[in-house]
Amino acid sequence: MLATKGYAAFDPNSPLAPFNFQRRDVGPHDVLIEIQFCGVCHSDLHTAKGEWGGANYPVVPGHEIVGRVVRVGEHVQNFKEGDLAGVGCMVDSCQSCPSCSDGYEQYCENGFTGTYNSPEKGLDTPTYGGYSNQIVVSEKFVLKIREDQDLARVAPLLCAGITTYSPLRHWKVGQGHKVGVVGLGGLGHMAVKLAASMGAEVTVLSTSPNKEADAQSLGAHKFVVTKDENALKQVRGYFDFIINTVSAKVSLDMYAGLLRRDGTMILLGVPPEAPELHAGTLIFGRRSIAGSLIGGIAETQEMLDYCAEHNILSDIEVINMSQINTAYDRMLAGDVKYRFVIDMATLEPENA
Amino acid sequence: MLATKGYAAFDPNSPLAPFNFQRRDVGPHDVLIEIQFCGVCHSDLHTAKGEWGGANYPVVPGHEIVGRVVRVGEHVQNFKEGDLAGVGCMVDSCQSCPSCSDGYEQYCENGFTGTYNSPEKGLDTPTYGGYSNQIVVSEKFVLKIREDQDLARVAPLLCAGITTYSPLRHWKVGQGHKVGVVGLGGLGHMAVKLAASMGAEVTVLSTSPNKEADAQSLGAHKFVVTKDENALKQVRGYFDFIINTVSAKVSLDMYAGLLRRDGTMILLGVPPEAPELHAGTLIFGRRSIAGSLIGGIAETQEMLDYCAEHNILSDIEVINMSQINTAYDRMLAGDVKYRFVIDMATLEPENA
Repeated sequence: MLATKGYAAFDPNSPLAPFNFQRRDVGPHDVLIEIQFCGVCHSDLHTAKGEWGGANYPVVPGHEIVGRVVRVGEHVQNFKEGDLAGVGCMVDSCQSCPSCSDGYEQYCENGFTGTYNSPEKGLDTPTYGGYSNQIVVSEKFVLKIREDQDLARVAPLLCAGITTYSPLRHWKVGQGHKVGVVGLGGLGHMAVKLAASMGAEVTVLSTSPNKEADAQSLGAHKFVVTKDENALKQVRGYFDFIINTVSAKVSLDMYAGLLRRDGTMILLGVPPEAPELHAGTLIFGRRSIAGSLIGGIAETQEMLDYCAEHNILSDIEVINMSQINTAYDRMLAGDVKYRFVIDMATLEPENA
Repeated sequence: MLATKGYAAFDPNSPLAPFNFQRRDVGPHDVLIEIQFCGVCHSDLHTAKGEWGGANYPVVPGHEIVGRVVRVGEHVQNFKEGDLAGVGCMVDSCQSCPSCSDGYEQYCENGFTGTYNSPEKGLDTPTYGGYSNQIVVSEKFVLKIREDQDLARVAPLLCAGITTYSPLRHWKVGQGHKVGVVGLGGLGHMAVKLAASMGAEVTVLSTSPNKEADAQSLGAHKFVVTKDENALKQVRGYFDFIINTVSAKVSLDMYAGLLRRDGTMILLGVPPEAPELHAGTLIFGRRSIAGSLIGGIAETQEMLDYCAEHNILSDIEVINMSQINTAYDRMLAGDVKYRFVIDMATLEPENA
């Protein structure tokens, strides 16, 4: 077993604190990664605080991981010591169901193994995530990261990036499409960058008029304050697609009414309370509401390569490991542009 | 003006009763149809009773109309006296918006003119529907009906038929697809017949175990009692498509959970109260919920031709005009297999 250092939530209410634990030995198909940066996703916070149920404490969050390979198992074919590597939201899946066979490990019909707080195959412990100095992952779930990139800004692509890239590709978003993005946070700011890079006209739909300049600097072409009834009326029936990243209870009918005929709203966030949906909103215009979950491993690699080629990176604020609790408070207050990323070199006290 | 006889609702609560009114003269592009049969749709009842708001009394319902052409305007090209003809839910649209240009008059961005209870272009009166002896309609909204068919059984195709045919075609339902049909009424029984004729495996999802034999005789391959938790479990993640014809408030989450990855549930009914929708139901499986409204005029003609070729007809109970109020009561009680159709020859007292 490998002695590993990290930060964990020990219960729903206490601040995260240092936690020493064991990782499995590097198996024949495994890659050991020394973690350099780990993004801070809202899922981390929800899980740490036990808000989604089923938290198996101590929880070591973190699934936006980049680092360098320091050891590989004897049968590993695609990675070698010294390579840059990334790990996203999954570290395993059944590899045999129809979804896995189709490259959709995120929809594994037997349930994928999450990077943290999932039962780890063959062990009695849960998986522990990226708020730690190292991680052991089957090479099938390890992504290649190109050199010469700002690695801290790459990290959030592993969740926020793929979660927005996958639906944009699945629904073939491109030139000539009008795309609305609801919510300008970690997911939303990536949706704006990616949709714009694919040639779509991008409109940020926001409750806050003071986000307009930011939206434009991210690449948005238009900005609509959704509390302004007149502005909202201007975009009724306007959008081919709406990427809804909000995980608060918002009106599905209001946003779906902004779709044109045959338009699709894609939900990426899970509100704690279910909103209502009037069938008429969909029927009068043959509109659709769909959901989408992260992306498959092959698609995640495609996204990382795409972002490297198009110089697309997350906008981030780098923090020390010991600042994680303040970062959570600031995330709850919406005070982050647009992702906190932990510099894992600060995990060791002498570097903090 | 043309003196016309019909049956109308005069207020939300009184029974429908005879009503004499004027139709517009036959214009250069109009067709005058002597109505032989008119289907009785749930929309008729909702509108007559003022349940959808905006009822402009007297309301003459009826939008599943078949009859014979008795006069045509001088510029009419596609119909002549003696032809069989049908009229569905629409009698006009703007003919210039993108939806009309694309052949989707049902999604006319300026609002189509409904066959009844819509403002009639150029007149101060509302449109009056098919519970009447004759109707004047622009030839663009008149459908051709083939001879040698049971016309009473053709009538419901004009609404129930096209409403189910259009989404099946739009979503390219066919061989290899598993289709669930929720609700075995006017729409549902047509969905079963049509989906089966297109090669899909059809399952009726019903709260009533006693509908199984009927479902099978309509062409369904399977039957699931949705109140049976075990039976429901067997079809979780099973369907490529669910055609939801129910206009009562039912659980969107429960039915959407029966969809496989990338499956789509299509809503055709408008419940008075909006049900809740948990985003997670869609996200974990990239499922979609969509709506669909009747069909365009060209597609309605395609459906009528398809049904004539495949000998697909509605299962009906023919009634006299004077029985309409009893028929409404029985519809509310779910006591009809599967559509009432009024024999318009019974409108004249001597025939009743």
